[in-house]
Amino acid sequence: MTGQQNMLKMMSLKHLLVISLALNVGLISRVMEVSREEKHVKKVKDDAGSKTVSYSSFLPTSTAAPAAQDDGSIINLDHGDPTMYERYWQQMGDRTTVVISGWQLISYFSDVRNICWFLESAFANAIVRLHKQVGNAVTEGRHIVVGTGSTQLYQAVLYALCPENASEPMSVVSAAPFYSSYPLMTDFLKSGLYKWAGDAYKFSKDEPYIELVTSPNNPDGASRVAVVNRKQGILVHDLAYYWPQYTPISFPADHDIMLFTFSKSTGHAGTRLGWALVKDEEVAKRMTKYIELNTIGVSKDSQIRAAKILNHVADSIEHGPESKQSDNFFEFGYNLMALRWAQLRAAVHRSDLFSLPSFPSGTCRFSGHHFKPQPAFAWLKCERDIEDCESFLRCHKILTRGGKHFGVGPEYVRISMMARDEIFDRFTDRLSMINS
Amino acid sequence: MTGQQNMLKMMSLKHLLVISLALNVGLISRVMEVSREEKHVKKVKDDAGSKTVSYSSFLPTSTAAPAAQDDGSIINLDHGDPTMYERYWQQMGDRTTVVISGWQLISYFSDVRNICWFLESAFANAIVRLHKQVGNAVTEGRHIVVGTGSTQLYQAVLYALCPENASEPMSVVSAAPFYSSYPLMTDFLKSGLYKWAGDAYKFSKDEPYIELVTSPNNPDGASRVAVVNRKQGILVHDLAYYWPQYTPISFPADHDIMLFTFSKSTGHAGTRLGWALVKDEEVAKRMTKYIELNTIGVSKDSQIRAAKILNHVADSIEHGPESKQSDNFFEFGYNLMALRWAQLRAAVHRSDLFSLPSFPSGTCRFSGHHFKPQPAFAWLKCERDIEDCESFLRCHKILTRGGKHFGVGPEYVRISMMARDEIFDRFTDRLSMINS
Repeated sequence: MTGQQNMLKMMSLKHLLVISLALNVGLISRVMEVSREEKHVKKVKDDAGSKTVSYSSFLPTSTAAPAAQDDGSIINLDHGDPTMYERYWQQMGDRTTVVISGWQLISYFSDVRNICWFLESAFANAIVRLHKQVGNAVTEGRHIVVGTGSTQLYQAVLYALCPENASEPMSVVSAAPFYSSYPLMTDFLKSGLYKWAGDAYKFSKDEPYIELVTSPNNPDGASRVAVVNRKQGILVHDLAYYWPQYTPISFPADHDIMLFTFSKSTGHAGTRLGWALVKDEEVAKRMTKYIELNTIGVSKDSQIRAAKILNHVADSIEHGPESKQSDNFFEFGYNLMALRWAQLRAAVHRSDLFSLPSFPSGTCRFSGHHFKPQPAFAWLKCERDIEDCESFLRCHKILTRGGKHFGVGPEYVRISMMARDEIFDRFTDRLSMINS
Repeated sequence: MTGQQNMLKMMSLKHLLVISLALNVGLISRVMEVSREEKHVKKVKDDAGSKTVSYSSFLPTSTAAPAAQDDGSIINLDHGDPTMYERYWQQMGDRTTVVISGWQLISYFSDVRNICWFLESAFANAIVRLHKQVGNAVTEGRHIVVGTGSTQLYQAVLYALCPENASEPMSVVSAAPFYSSYPLMTDFLKSGLYKWAGDAYKFSKDEPYIELVTSPNNPDGASRVAVVNRKQGILVHDLAYYWPQYTPISFPADHDIMLFTFSKSTGHAGTRLGWALVKDEEVAKRMTKYIELNTIGVSKDSQIRAAKILNHVADSIEHGPESKQSDNFFEFGYNLMALRWAQLRAAVHRSDLFSLPSFPSGTCRFSGHHFKPQPAFAWLKCERDIEDCESFLRCHKILTRGGKHFGVGPEYVRISMMARDEIFDRFTDRLSMINS
């Protein structure tokens, strides 16, 4: 046997081991979904303890110790603050530390030849690189527009799509339950260009409209397609959660206007960055114009930092999802979300007061995992005679966002699944103690 | 003589020398203003050469060598891109280098107890510290609201001040010539809350209004007070240029709503940061709400960086303007602007085609310098039969912004005084070559 053959054999063994571990995780997660019992959460936690150090580092620190005693304090899961990612980035130490000198990034301009003249090319390159590796969106033939979060990009899109001299503002719709900020962001300035027209299922006017397709959907995690489907419609795809820690990546999204946000992909909400992939040059120009008039560009410091972070994520998956287990970003997110959903389903199962949506499973073309979506938010329904789920949970000092904000009834609430470990553990503990 | 006495004597001598040098600069600048001749520019440049190394480092590098040959390329002075400050920050080396780890600043929230919950306290503290040292604005009893540049804060102010249910949008006015972006920022979304109503001098409606008071004014550098002065008016003071490199600081501004921007104070336009000092709590809350709906906060990376930079500026003037000449930020800016205005006035004086505004001199209570304003923009007027000054200069490949953008006639243009040294030198060279 030559040295080369030896190496190949070792690598094959390594691969097999990794695949076996991956299968193991897949099977455990399947078992949990089927039985929805606490014992399975315990199993995941126990299994984690018996795995290699590099792997177990991706499960919450709280799995090692019993959950902290519930001190009865308020648990705020109203906002989607993605602090669950802090631990991963702490584990990466100084690998994504960014250093900016006082004389750098002074000018307003990044690249005057680019339509989006305030887009840092390092950030743009990192975006393209990551999408290509993950396979969740087509970047070829697209213009990238950077925004101060996808919130600003949403408003930029509305400005870009609505004619300046229309007699009536354009209708903007989205299928209920829809992201609670859409109506607010659309209407707060009483624009003459666009107006919120509510649930897409109920839209019946024979006039131009914009339909927001959020997939996976915020709040309920469902995969979505357009529902109005009329000639005069323009579609905007909000793909904030189309990443392999939340849902199986089934195809590279290939829509005209696609919005992504840094906060839900890597967890860095404080940078306030998002990006749009835009097919039409004129739309990209108008979106850029909006951001020019609204904020004269987007923080360059954050863009430079984001480039470093996205490149780290890309590095961590360079050789496919099964390699480099110890720093694979999406494996961290996938395992953590799997555990959290198992914990939540177990807690919900203990009483007959609540229910959760069920999802079809699918195979992720990025990771190879076969799994059911494990969304960034839980869309919880209060059953029986609880009419106002938000108020009910507030009595138990759990702050959530009620269904009416999302265009549906008060029996629903949206719950963030992205809090820090100790908060999330305390939440599921408390939820499981609530009896009828 | 004791050692202590010796030291005191040495310090007094040092102080005297510093004061003498400062006087020297003041005198030179006065002489230049009076005669407006090229020979005075030469004198400043020559003087600079004979000064101590630490002092001369604050004059443009281009003063040492003759100005670069004019290659006839386009000189773009349309935007107020403050790249002239790059050299100062380069000279400071790594003293304002910021280092941010991957796990820091992940959350949306900075301080939930603060009205402006996305304001980093380090940034807020640095703002208060610097205003106190410079004496240009009262911070006591004010709420600080951070924005993605003062551009976003301007829009936040409009949202905050206009009632939601008014039958008519509120009128927004400013005395012409006004900042060219005001009409665009006010009207681009066709808001039902507010509308641009033009030149404050011509505003005659008996209804509520917002008056923007920009002082020193962009484009013409004039000190401003409100002009409408009616009962139903609300004033917003844009104090972007109320810093000692541009104008004598005569008093700490003490208005209800004051806007500042990082880009024109330290030059860091790429960070996209501004701040508002707001007396009324409800207004601060509404402004915060606007920014929440518009961009869910402001880049934390930029705020942390800005805190470091503002603290450096504060350190550099800690012992008054006459101390630490080698890194005093405002002395750098003051000297550079003095030189540039002398250069420009000399160039303008060579032909009878152009004129510039004249300003009354004043004593700066911060620096002690007695000087005439040396604004960040030159408000140039084309004389004789040149009707369109912007087009005229464009023929000479000098890009400026014409008077019509500022609500006045095309005989005026606004020219940025904040370009890099080589660009500015080439501009004054070319301008001085234009003859009738």
